Formats: sequence, structure tokens, C-alpha cells
Amino acid sequence: MRGALALVRTARSLGATVWFANPGTTEMPLVTALDEVPGTRAVLGLFEGVCTGAADGYGRMTDRPAVTLLHLGPGLANGLANLHNARRARSPVLNVVGDHTTWHRDADAPLTSDIAALAGTVSAEVRSSRRPDDLARDFAALHARVSASPGCVGTLIAPADCQWAESGPPPAEATLPRPEPRQPPAERVAEALRRLRSATRPVLLVGGLALREEGLAAAARVAAATGARLVCETFPARLERGAGRPAVERLGYFPEQALAQLAGVDLLLLAGAREPVAFFGYPDAPSRLVPEGCGVATLASDAEDPRPALRALADELGAPVPRGPDAPRPEAPASGPLDPASLGAVLAALQPEGAVVVDEGATSALPHFVAAAGSRPHTWLGLTGGAIGQGLPCAAGAALACPGRRVIALEADGSALYTLQALHTHAREGLDVTTVLCSNRRYRILQVELARAGVAEPGPVARDLTSLDRPPLDWVALARGQGVPAARAETVEAFREELSRALAAPGPSLIEAVL
Amino acid sequence: MRGALALVRTARSLGATVWFANPGTTEMPLVTALDEVPGTRAVLGLFEGVCTGAADGYGRMTDRPAVTLLHLGPGLANGLANLHNARRARSPVLNVVGDHTTWHRDADAPLTSDIAALAGTVSAEVRSSRRPDDLARDFAALHARVSASPGCVGTLIAPADCQWAESGPPPAEATLPRPEPRQPPAERVAEALRRLRSATRPVLLVGGLALREEGLAAAARVAAATGARLVCETFPARLERGAGRPAVERLGYFPEQALAQLAGVDLLLLAGAREPVAFFGYPDAPSRLVPEGCGVATLASDAEDPRPALRALADELGAPVPRGPDAPRPEAPASGPLDPASLGAVLAALQPEGAVVVDEGATSALPHFVAAAGSRPHTWLGLTGGAIGQGLPCAAGAALACPGRRVIALEADGSALYTLQALHTHAREGLDVTTVLCSNRRYRILQVELARAGVAEPGPVARDLTSLDRPPLDWVALARGQGVPAARAETVEAFREELSRALAAPGPSLIEAVL
Repeated sequence: MRGALALVRTARSLGATVWFANPGTTEMPLVTALDEVPGTRAVLGLFEGVCTGAADGYGRMTDRPAVTLLHLGPGLANGLANLHNARRARSPVLNVVGDHTTWHRDADAPLTSDIAALAGTVSAEVRSSRRPDDLARDFAALHARVSASPGCVGTLIAPADCQWAESGPPPAEATLPRPEPRQPPAERVAEALRRLRSATRPVLLVGGLALREEGLAAAARVAAATGARLVCETFPARLERGAGRPAVERLGYFPEQALAQLAGVDLLLLAGAREPVAFFGYPDAPSRLVPEGCGVATLASDAEDPRPALRALADELGAPVPRGPDAPRPEAPASGPLDPASLGAVLAALQPEGAVVVDEGATSALPHFVAAAGSRPHTWLGLTGGAIGQGLPCAAGAALACPGRRVIALEADGSALYTLQALHTHAREGLDVTTVLCSNRRYRILQVELARAGVAEPGPVARDLTSLDRPPLDWVALARGQGVPAARAETVEAFREELSRALAAPGPSLIEAVL
Repeated sequence: MRGALALVRTARSLGATVWFANPGTTEMPLVTALDEVPGTRAVLGLFEGVCTGAADGYGRMTDRPAVTLLHLGPGLANGLANLHNARRARSPVLNVVGDHTTWHRDADAPLTSDIAALAGTVSAEVRSSRRPDDLARDFAALHARVSASPGCVGTLIAPADCQWAESGPPPAEATLPRPEPRQPPAERVAEALRRLRSATRPVLLVGGLALREEGLAAAARVAAATGARLVCETFPARLERGAGRPAVERLGYFPEQALAQLAGVDLLLLAGAREPVAFFGYPDAPSRLVPEGCGVATLASDAEDPRPALRALADELGAPVPRGPDAPRPEAPASGPLDPASLGAVLAALQPEGAVVVDEGATSALPHFVAAAGSRPHTWLGLTGGAIGQGLPCAAGAALACPGRRVIALEADGSALYTLQALHTHAREGLDVTTVLCSNRRYRILQVELARAGVAEPGPVARDLTSLDRPPLDWVALARGQGVPAARAETVEAFREELSRALAAPGPSLIEAVL
């Protein structure tokens, strides 16, 4: 059988059945192989950033890698920003990047570029197959690598001739490598216990897989038994939250906010999180956000699965499951002007149980995050790597991963425009994604940054480069133009009505919320 | 003064006055500096691929670099595909990529990534400033490097603290490095003469700067005096053509086409072009498209300016300026079905003198190229690197470079969707860009490739991954949603009418030609 078919069969054996693809000539043998292997699903993205962002969302929601199928260096390059986010999210993602035939590489044809260098910037491992027989084996090795908990990004460079030429059969299923869990050594639990017992104002900083239900439950037991505050990283990949789930304080975005939250703390115990650092460097703020005199101990690093260690620690402490008061159930205003606060309150009140909220709402979304603490239980996905254009693609992947759950893409207009082609995927696949498009017609965060830098009156260039209103974008047209039903809301009443309608209907829709 | 201001002033001194920008927090000092230097123009692109593609188009039309202003690694990554095209076009492009403050890099903040590795894949040179004083000097050095003829891509990594901190004054204008021309050594002319004289069926293969008016005129003199056929590379960056200009045969895209064109040729004399290679490797075709027994001589490589050598060679030959018959003036059909042939004929007939045609029409555009050989004199810009999503951004840059000339973006739907955000730039800047959007609702080239590979009946996956019709894209909505007037044409009559109207009106417009 051809090398391409051996690869796709091996992927199927490993459970990697969803392919987010934008193939070109050098991937055609893999495309035809996908037709020969029942049980695989190929989803076309009309820009590679859609494919990689969708794979990130799929990986976050299933803990299994989706495969991206990308065309040479430029195709991979178009997907890099969302692979950067996936790397920061520790999502399992496996890229298959077609390459020129092995004997054509030296010709330096127009589409030739350094694929390995590009892939290396986001991948824990890059493999480049040399013979047809390599393809399935390299895929399987990368699959095991990226599938460990927490996951990572891996990239397979697959020359076209390796795909089309005859290879041996795929490796026997029993011989395929399997992921090995990444868990902290046992002595970390005892050390954490010792440090917690000698601390007077400890914080348990949770991130990564500690923010899944079982991780949070164990963390809440530890917090209740020790008096530690439970704080989560600023941009979690996936946070389970809402009524009945442990309340977690979120670390602030700006360094002065985080430093104020951590003032007086004498121990930071890390569980799946890294030592906090500022998002950006500022003239008068430190990089490292650990207060002076505060000790740091690591129960589990961000590269490890903190859940077993958290459970062991909670058991050592004999900690019962705490029953704290739930956050107040959000109440939606009935009328009034639409602004981030009212929008957030309406959304928090109406979002259904089991919703997956993909939050790329930037400055417009924070009130929703606060209000939704008491919403029905839901999953929240954050912008881990800061590379905008993640939300709409990630929502597509989450929806494909979780049929039956409503996905809500809470989007900023500037960010959404980066990868608006994802709306076509929402329509094409009939995904239950409701996009709430916060249209404030500006890169608001940059205007905030200008003010923070002391620029009280930005000049015309600074105003122009941070404004999206010349001309304003018509999001209803942009969504309908790609097959997604859309409506505009300028008041709370209209937003309530449109949101209720959208959440009740199957399939995708977009509401342009004019703020 | 701040490092950022010294940089922008130096850029202004060097004539680098147009900035295609999508800045973030780490570029804010440069943004405020742009407000302080009169005579600079900042153009916002709502996706970085728009900025880099526009810089490519600007560079091709002016032979001077535009500056791109990009945000960290992910911002650069989003611009890489069009920088790949710019690299292949040998366009002068200078990227300024903001970076974290020098003391914040080791913190590995969320947006940290290996910017130099990304930049290295497309840049002839990457510089990373370390101190405020470096910024202007590094910029000037890169400016000289990228501005040589032919040009190249250079990247400056500019840490935020180097931008905002005090630096010395910018280097004195007289001390700024200037580009050195890249010209072939004089002995190449004599060698070319000798080889041409001993050849019986020579081809003069022209590319790069040989395709400008003066290069073509000299090449035509050489061809007329020696009997050499004048053939140009398959995807020229910029070709001056139309009535009154030398006719040039274009090398075919598929290897069998190029090999047939070159069959029996005993000398390929290269002037600004590389030895021809196949775009992709195929099972039964070679990489190298030079026929067996054909000699190859280089008058000027693709990294050299071939114009002086071509003039010298023509003078050595005592060759007069040939007066060949012009290609027939295109005639537009008056009515009938709209297809690539009728669309190409109408456009070739109606396009005004001095038009700049940016051709990313893929399989729909070839008939126009043939028909336009006899059109009024115009400039044609090709997709040099094969990375789609180049046309609409490149058109923006060309229009900014050439006020008063009509820019025609001849676009394939699949390609246009990659960077459709460029339409917003067309509207925002009021550019005279007429987009002819060839909507065939498929990646037609891939369907051709499947047929070439012997897949007579593609399966459902292969059909689905090469089709854009589920749901169809409404390009009128996508254009209007970004502020560009738009209309749809389904017949020759309608296309003629809409095109006439569009070409007569100032500012941008889009015609969705349904094929």
C-alpha cells in the first residue's frame, strides 16, 4: 500500500480520526487516502489558521490530538499563530505538513522554504520522513509524544513521494507506541505538605489540567484544609466553572493587578501552573510577579499532570470536600444600553448548562467572566498565547469535539477579523456555535496601553492605527457572506432577543453586539 | 530622543516613508514616534498578511522598501506567507518586529517565541537590536541591504525598551550606508556573446529586473540580432507588457509544457532568471527543466541586475531596436456566457493604459494573460512564491505606490479568501483598486492535479476538500461588509457593464464574476 494510506490507517488505529485540512498539490496522496479509510472525518478550513485553531479547540476538549493537514512552508506559516496558542495551552496537536518530493527539494522550487525551522518554533518535536515506510512510524511516534497529559504540538514533514510510493503495511496496532503520563515524582507531595504547614498566607496557584473538574475538586479540598487561597493563571486553556464548582480567583492581567492580589502572600504552591510573569515588560514593573519574600514550591509544573498529586495532597491532609456558597446566579438586565457589563450579564444568565465559552472578547469580555462565576456549569477556554484570531477557529474545533453542547464564541471584532474564514467552517459543518461579536470598532487594549504609557492625547497616527471605524465593519454581512445567519443588536432588549433565538436554534449564528 | 524616534527619523531620511502596520503593545513607542515625524504614512492592515503583501506590491512598483510594523512572533508569523512571496519576487521589504523588553525575554511570557527563527526563513538578514542606539543604525544597515537591485527581505527585531529609552541622535544622513548595486562582472557579456554565436537554437530566458521596460528593450535587441527566442520565467514579479512592448513567451507551469517549449533548444542564456525547475515534483517528470544536451550560460543571475549586461550585450551585437508586429488588440465579446476566456477577453479589452494587473487568478486567469498581450501598455505582477493570499494585499501596496494608475486585482476565490481583510485597506485608503473576483467555487488547480495523478473519480473527501460551494461564498456581501462597493456578474453583458463602471469610478470596487 502507499505510504499515505499506511499513515492514515495508523492514525485511525490510534484514534486520530479528525483532520483539519487545507491541502495542496503535495498532500493529494493523503487526501485520496482519507477517502479509503472509513471512520475518518476531514474538515476543510479556508485558511490554515482555521485548521490549527480548530485542532487546538478539539485537543482541549478531548485530550486527543486532531491532525492538521497543511501545505508546505507557507501553509504551515499561516497556521503558526494558532499553533503558538496551542503550544501555550499544552494542547495535543499533530501537524502533517506535505513537502516536495525528496528528490525535488534541492531544486529550490518557488514554494520551497525551511519547513523544519518554522515547525520548530511551535513543536516539541519535528520529524521529517525520508522513505515511504517512515510515514506511519513517524506519525505514531509523534502521536505518542503529543498525546501525553499535558499534551504538546508535534509536526511531521511528509514528502509527496513518500506519500505516493509503495510502503510496507502499517505497524501492527500492538506495536504502536503509547503516551506516557507526565506526572510529578511522589516526593513533591510531602514537600508541598511541609511548605503549606509552615506558611501563614499561602496561595495555591492552579493551571493546566488542575482546572479540570477532578483537579479543581482536589485543589479546593487542599485550599479548605490549609487556608490557602485558590488562584488560577490569567489565561487558562480550559477552566471548568459555574454553579456547584469550586470558586477560583483569576490572576489579573496587568502586573500591578497581579502584584496587588499576591501582596503579603508567603507561599505560592504551583499546581500545573508556572511562576507568574507579566504579559509584557513595562518601565516600572517587574517581569516576575512573585512578591518579595514569598516562597515558591512546585507540586506539579505546567509540563506535568497535577491531578494525581493534588488528590494525594488532599488525602494526606484528610481534607473533606468543601461546600462553599455558590457565586450569585447572574441576573440579566431587561433593558438599557448595551455595553460590556450588560452584555456579559445577559450572556451569563442565558448561556445553557454545559456551554463551552471560547473567550477572545479581550477588553469587552471581562464582565462576562465575572458574572458567569454563578452561571450554570460550563467550560471556559482562554487565549493562552495572546495571538489573536484564535476564538472562531477554536470554537469550531470545540463544537466538533463536543456534539450536543452549545459553543459560545465571545469575540472581539479586531481579533475575529484575523480568522473570520472560520465562520465558513461553522456553516459548512453545521456547528452549534453562537458567536457573540463585541463590536467596539477599535483595538481597545492598545488604546489602554497608550494611556498607561502616559500618552493622554494620542496623535492622528496612533488613533488611526488603533481604530477599526474607517469604514466600520458590517459583521452581519461578513457572516451571511459565509453562510452564517446573523443579526445586529444595539440594545439590551435586542441582544436578549437575538441571543435567546440563537441559543435555541441548531447550527451556527452570529450576533453583532454594537458596543 | 527616544530610540523609536531616532529609528523613524532615520527611515524618513532614507525615504522609507510608508509603514504597513498592525502594531501591538510592544510597538507603541514606534507608533507614537510616527506621529512625531511629518512625511511618514502609516497604513493599517487588519491582518499581518495584508501588511506584508502590501509591502511586496509597494516594493515591486517603486524599487524602494516599505516598512512593515509587526507584533512579536505571532504577528510576524501571520505575515510570513506573503514575505515568502516577496522573497521570491526579490522585493525590497523591511520588517520591523517589536519584541519584549530585553530584560523580559527570559520570563518566557505568553507571547514569547523565537522571532529570529521565523524571520530567518524569509530574510536575507535579521538584526536584533540590543540598545536604544542600535535601532536607527540597524535599520539603516538593513535598509541598504534590502534596497540593492534586486532587493531582498530584511528584518529588524526591536525590543520595546530600546524603543522607549533615550538614545543618541540618529546617525547623520551623510553617514548612512547606501545600497550597492548587484551587477554581474563584465566578462559575462563576452562569454554570453561567444555562447550565443556558437548556438543554433538559443533561448534568452529573462526574469527579475530584465522584465522592466529598459531590460526588455535590450533583451529584444539581443534576440533580434541573434535569433534567440525571448522567454520569461513562469511567475515574474513584474512584467511590463502590452502594445508597443517586446513580445515575450512565458514558460509553462507544468513540467511537460515547459519541456515541450524548450525541446531542441541548445542554449539557455539566463538574464535575471534562474535555471528553470518544476513547480512540483511529479512521478514521471524531472526537477530540472533544461533539455538534455542544452547548454546553460548566465549573463546575470536572479540575484543580479541584468539590465546593464543586457544593454552591453545588445551594443556589442550592434543590435537595432526591433519593430515586430504587435499582438492583436483584444476584442471583447459583446454577450454570452461568462467563463475564463470571455472574462479574460473583456478585461483585456477594457483595462486602461498604465493599468497594474495583480494576477492571482490561478486557473481562471490564463486566458486573460494571453489576450492582454495586445492590451494597452500595462504592468503585470505575478504570484512569485506560490503562497496564495497575495493578490488583494499586493494590489493595495501597488495602488499606494502608483497614485493615478488603475490597479486591477484579478483574483481566484480560494486565494482571495486567505487575506480578504485587504479589502478593508482598499476602502480605508480609498485606493483605485478594481477587484475582479473569479468565483468558480473550487480549488480548481487541485482538481486538475487529482486528474493528473490518475484519480478519475475523486471520492467524497477529495471532492469536499477541493470545493468551496458548501455553502457558496457571497463575495458581494464580503466586500460590502468591509466598505468596498460590489456587484455580481453572471453574463458577459453584466460583466462588461460592471467592469466599465468600476474602472471609471475612483476608489475601490469588487466584481464577483460567477464562472
